[in-house]
Amino acid sequence: MSRIPVAILGATGAVGQRFVQLLADHPWFEIAALAASERSAGRAFREVAKWVIPGDPPPGLGEMPVQPLEPDLPARLVFSALPGNVAAEVEPVFARAGYAVCSNASAYRQAPDVPLIIPELNADHVGMIPDQRASQGWPGLIVTSPNCTTTGICIPLKALDEAFGARQVAAVSMQAISGAGYPGVPSLDILGNVIPYIGGEEEKIEEETRLLLGRMQGGRRVKAEVVISAQANRVPVLDGHTVCLSVGFESQPTVEEAVAALAGFRGPEVVRGLPSAPERPILVRAEPDRPQPRRDRDAGRGMAVTVGRVRRCPLLHLRLVSVSHNTVRGAAGGSILNAELLVASGYVGESGSR
Amino acid sequence: MSRIPVAILGATGAVGQRFVQLLADHPWFEIAALAASERSAGRAFREVAKWVIPGDPPPGLGEMPVQPLEPDLPARLVFSALPGNVAAEVEPVFARAGYAVCSNASAYRQAPDVPLIIPELNADHVGMIPDQRASQGWPGLIVTSPNCTTTGICIPLKALDEAFGARQVAAVSMQAISGAGYPGVPSLDILGNVIPYIGGEEEKIEEETRLLLGRMQGGRRVKAEVVISAQANRVPVLDGHTVCLSVGFESQPTVEEAVAALAGFRGPEVVRGLPSAPERPILVRAEPDRPQPRRDRDAGRGMAVTVGRVRRCPLLHLRLVSVSHNTVRGAAGGSILNAELLVASGYVGESGSR
Amino acid sequence: MSRIPVAILGATGAVGQRFVQLLADHPWFEIAALAASERSAGRAFREVAKWVIPGDPPPGLGEMPVQPLEPDLPARLVFSALPGNVAAEVEPVFARAGYAVCSNASAYRQAPDVPLIIPELNADHVGMIPDQRASQGWPGLIVTSPNCTTTGICIPLKALDEAFGARQVAAVSMQAISGAGYPGVPSLDILGNVIPYIGGEEEKIEEETRLLLGRMQGGRRVKAEVVISAQANRVPVLDGHTVCLSVGFESQPTVEEAVAALAGFRGPEVVRGLPSAPERPILVRAEPDRPQPRRDRDAGRGMAVTVGRVRRCPLLHLRLVSVSHNTVRGAAGGSILNAELLVASGYVGESGSR
Amino acid sequence: MSRIPVAILGATGAVGQRFVQLLADHPWFEIAALAASERSAGRAFREVAKWVIPGDPPPGLGEMPVQPLEPDLPARLVFSALPGNVAAEVEPVFARAGYAVCSNASAYRQAPDVPLIIPELNADHVGMIPDQRASQGWPGLIVTSPNCTTTGICIPLKALDEAFGARQVAAVSMQAISGAGYPGVPSLDILGNVIPYIGGEEEKIEEETRLLLGRMQGGRRVKAEVVISAQANRVPVLDGHTVCLSVGFESQPTVEEAVAALAGFRGPEVVRGLPSAPERPILVRAEPDRPQPRRDRDAGRGMAVTVGRVRRCPLLHLRLVSVSHNTVRGAAGGSILNAELLVASGYVGESGSR
Repeated sequence: MSRIPVAILGATGAVGQRFVQLLADHPWFEIAALAASERSAGRAFREVAKWVIPGDPPPGLGEMPVQPLEPDLPARLVFSALPGNVAAEVEPVFARAGYAVCSNASAYRQAPDVPLIIPELNADHVGMIPDQRASQGWPGLIVTSPNCTTTGICIPLKALDEAFGARQVAAVSMQAISGAGYPGVPSLDILGNVIPYIGGEEEKIEEETRLLLGRMQGGRRVKAEVVISAQANRVPVLDGHTVCLSVGFESQPTVEEAVAALAGFRGPEVVRGLPSAPERPILVRAEPDRPQPRRDRDAGRGMAVTVGRVRRCPLLHLRLVSVSHNTVRGAAGGSILNAELLVASGYVGESGSR
Repeated sequence: MSRIPVAILGATGAVGQRFVQLLADHPWFEIAALAASERSAGRAFREVAKWVIPGDPPPGLGEMPVQPLEPDLPARLVFSALPGNVAAEVEPVFARAGYAVCSNASAYRQAPDVPLIIPELNADHVGMIPDQRASQGWPGLIVTSPNCTTTGICIPLKALDEAFGARQVAAVSMQAISGAGYPGVPSLDILGNVIPYIGGEEEKIEEETRLLLGRMQGGRRVKAEVVISAQANRVPVLDGHTVCLSVGFESQPTVEEAVAALAGFRGPEVVRGLPSAPERPILVRAEPDRPQPRRDRDAGRGMAVTVGRVRRCPLLHLRLVSVSHNTVRGAAGGSILNAELLVASGYVGESGSR
Repeated sequence: MSRIPVAILGATGAVGQRFVQLLADHPWFEIAALAASERSAGRAFREVAKWVIPGDPPPGLGEMPVQPLEPDLPARLVFSALPGNVAAEVEPVFARAGYAVCSNASAYRQAPDVPLIIPELNADHVGMIPDQRASQGWPGLIVTSPNCTTTGICIPLKALDEAFGARQVAAVSMQAISGAGYPGVPSLDILGNVIPYIGGEEEKIEEETRLLLGRMQGGRRVKAEVVISAQANRVPVLDGHTVCLSVGFESQPTVEEAVAALAGFRGPEVVRGLPSAPERPILVRAEPDRPQPRRDRDAGRGMAVTVGRVRRCPLLHLRLVSVSHNTVRGAAGGSILNAELLVASGYVGESGSR
Repeated sequence: MSRIPVAILGATGAVGQRFVQLLADHPWFEIAALAASERSAGRAFREVAKWVIPGDPPPGLGEMPVQPLEPDLPARLVFSALPGNVAAEVEPVFARAGYAVCSNASAYRQAPDVPLIIPELNADHVGMIPDQRASQGWPGLIVTSPNCTTTGICIPLKALDEAFGARQVAAVSMQAISGAGYPGVPSLDILGNVIPYIGGEEEKIEEETRLLLGRMQGGRRVKAEVVISAQANRVPVLDGHTVCLSVGFESQPTVEEAVAALAGFRGPEVVRGLPSAPERPILVRAEPDRPQPRRDRDAGRGMAVTVGRVRRCPLLHLRLVSVSHNTVRGAAGGSILNAELLVASGYVGESGSR
């Protein structure tokens, strides 16, 4: 099959650059356009994007002229790495014009008719799309991927929830600086320091978790009733979010049962063959001092979550630590996997949108 | 009053150096001897102690010859910064020889007849000393100060416990590298990384908390029954431990009541005039992004704990963040304050030990 | 004597905050006004200055309302921590209105009638002031302090130049992030990285060195003819600039002679009693691995330069390493010392300007 | 052709691990044995090597039992990542037993009959081997690769030397912590700091440069007469050494000519097809703020040196900045390239050693 032409909205930012990097050699998608704000439009990508990823932009793309955020891009599928306020305006314009929008922005993550998806967890939430199209009158669609920290929490949480019924969660994150974009966190604030606050992050984690673990019922999404308390911290780490979790269950598992549930988790059949899906969504490490963000963030090419220190908790039932790559699995890679799911589910393709 | 001659056991290590620094100009105590392992004995302090604190050893002390760990030091009070296994052997030898031992080592912190003290919290635990002397037959005594992370947790926890009855605690720490001593943590492990594990730390935090919050009853210490779950992490911060806390209470306070209890906490009368006691043991900050270890660790000359982000918790009742200086309040400074308490309580002095 | 009222222009930035901190308890000067751009004017200092120095603004000053950059401040002396382009406009306005301006900005450092001063090096350059006033028609005056990196190079270089005649200098700097102000260097750029470029820095170092080492001749400043090559790098260090120097001399010294010249350097008599002058401008360390920015930047309360590794150079004559505190000696502290020199020299005071 | 069995001496250390990583999929070589000190021998590699590289040991190798450093390994070629003092004893034993030893240790780098080789620079120094064998009576051989920092200096220096005759060099390095091995640099020393000293490094750089740039004359190596001054610093960077260079030439080039010589450098024909040889040994970047260690160390899979900021020098002729990967090109990768050169030159192979 010939590759599907895609565009990246907000291509010049830190997450936009990850999209560019990850899509450069994608077997199903081909970058047909890079779009960004007025200020950048018309200039070569290389000139307007201060490349913050090691190395250089992929060959050929550095010279591609950046286009404005207008819905006349030569693509059927667009990835959105836009800031929340810009996404709020621009994404519906594209959906209305018939594009499938796979968004990593926060603007519509909590909208009642927009699926928030991690394919291994809730691929069936694509079932919300027909209602979305009907109610909005869009030939296109919007699908979102969750906040980067939510991702590292919910992938192992889902594996445990499926097996034992998660009821209570305490989550304390130690988040990498790349999560704040570029220029993002001033070095004077974070060098040799911890900042115990990330605006809006805790609320996102708490609400998005309830959506991701929610179930479809009669074509509608019903939120999960898990009680979750999140505390978000910024630490001087380049990439990779670490989260300390305590979880209480409906049915208390042993440590061995929990490890088996985590290591054996695969997600639904439809996800397994997708090009960006890691062989195993969750890797469980046995060493006492793992996972670590610098050493484990690239597991499964950045798409696997690494879990360790699974042990009893004196307060709830179990404690564990999770590390995930915040700009791959937790951002661009997550949205690309969503796009692959849309293709596999028939929402994008020959007879899909556009 | 002429100053009381004191000695430092384990003076050459990272915590030993903090003792040297903090005692150099102490109004009550005078450094009469620096002692360390055989290997260092007989050589000048400057030669054997690789000074890891900014600047230089205090004037005069650099040339002091290091003495062996034998109980013939020209002092009545000794501070122990020894490694746990060495402390286990050496500290009782000194107590038996009549010295008052103020230890920062872990060896006897959990021993049933050894007080574990933070003066503002449980100064009355010095009441265990008569029993200790009687049962051990020591003319001297051993008093311990808690683990550095326990300290930053228990000072605010005590303020809240006194007012509202703490019942459940979830604590996740982000600990500075200086807590591991020198050479301590290899830079290849921690630069741009988080290590979600510190051997033995979580168990210490959990058990020491129950001792510190315990109450005296008929001359005996009764452990507190608070349920606590600790998760310990190492982060690339030089000094200053940060802890994210969730706390459940017998009687749920509002955020305002909790802030008032924290900011108003003073500890018992006996502590207030001690030279190393900070004006306020707990400082409460209102900014959303404080406390931070680099910016708040030196509050109250490193002896105050800074607390912030006091807010509701969806899981337990309240969440908050605490920062304390791990080698000052959490180590050398804490032991010095204990020694001051012993003097004020009459356990060391003209007619005290030795 | 009652303290001289002073104002700080650009008080809210990173260097402005250092001025506030260092002047808070100054024996000669009293902060009478804090001024900044329109945007901040009228609001409390605490609100508009994101305090980036550990701890808090000095008591009382947090509530002081920030004033606009207009020459009606209740002061005779103003310190300028303004950005270069703002300083270029604002500083002459204040000089014209009769204020003595002690500037840390780059705007007029290289102007032919403006003295660029480090008191221990070239206090006699205040002799340029009468000509400045005459040619500009100013009742006030402008005196500047050099770039932070120039400072750490020129203090030891002057000691060697006086003794042996410096002719050639190769200087490679490793500069702290605080030198770039706030927000300054993005953490995504500098964490675990080196940036081998600081815009305009090398040119400043090269030209300012020739001015600082210049001599007064008939009331005019004659530039030094030293040949200097500078390479400037940013490294992940909070405060403290490190410079590796190679120097060639008219008369080649031995290492011992060079160390004696450095350690014995005092600067002119007029400087020695000034409140901010360190006892010794240069400290020489003998350890093979010193000076280090984190351990030596605070020497002499941040006003001394620490030098080490003085050794033969196969290419020029000598190599050495210098560390200085870039926001104290290299910025605010340097300008305050200049102001003290102006007072001691009679340019500011009862009958001075204003 | 079937792959040549190789062994790694000192496989468990930081550089040894890089050898393991880089040889895991090598087209010509196959890891047949991992050897290390007595202490590790007999145990599985995974157990004794604390893996400090991201991710895990290559599949299969984790379980390989570690062998002692005895010359009965099932290999013809051995790579040495041994500490200098161990290498001094062990490497000749292997050469005497007929092995070709490609060493990254410093023990024999400066020995008069041992070639020190970077293939693109001085592949012809393999011509020293026949004399080595004759004089030592070895059926095997020893070839060494230079110090990591020397490598990053000499590759661009050779390109310039060939074209314009390098006569004087001032080199100031900013070296990554991985250059010190594991556990290596304590984090308490390097976090937020610079250490302006690395024991023995400056002497190595200065002497090795003269050997690498030396020429073969009548089967003998004649040292280059370039005058070089090196200053070595440790900075808080994980991997990648940065060097600021000033160079004086016999024939002064323009900046454009220098850039052309650097970018056009290829090295001798024999090197070009080797599996580990990068397409271009030197990449020249035009951005003002490159090269940077974190962003450029992986260029050419860690085997290319990235150069930038080529500009006039007021003191010598040209200044430039070089970044190279210290554990790939500067250590394991460099030795592997040497081994490939030995194969291509006929010193190892069917009729080669063993």
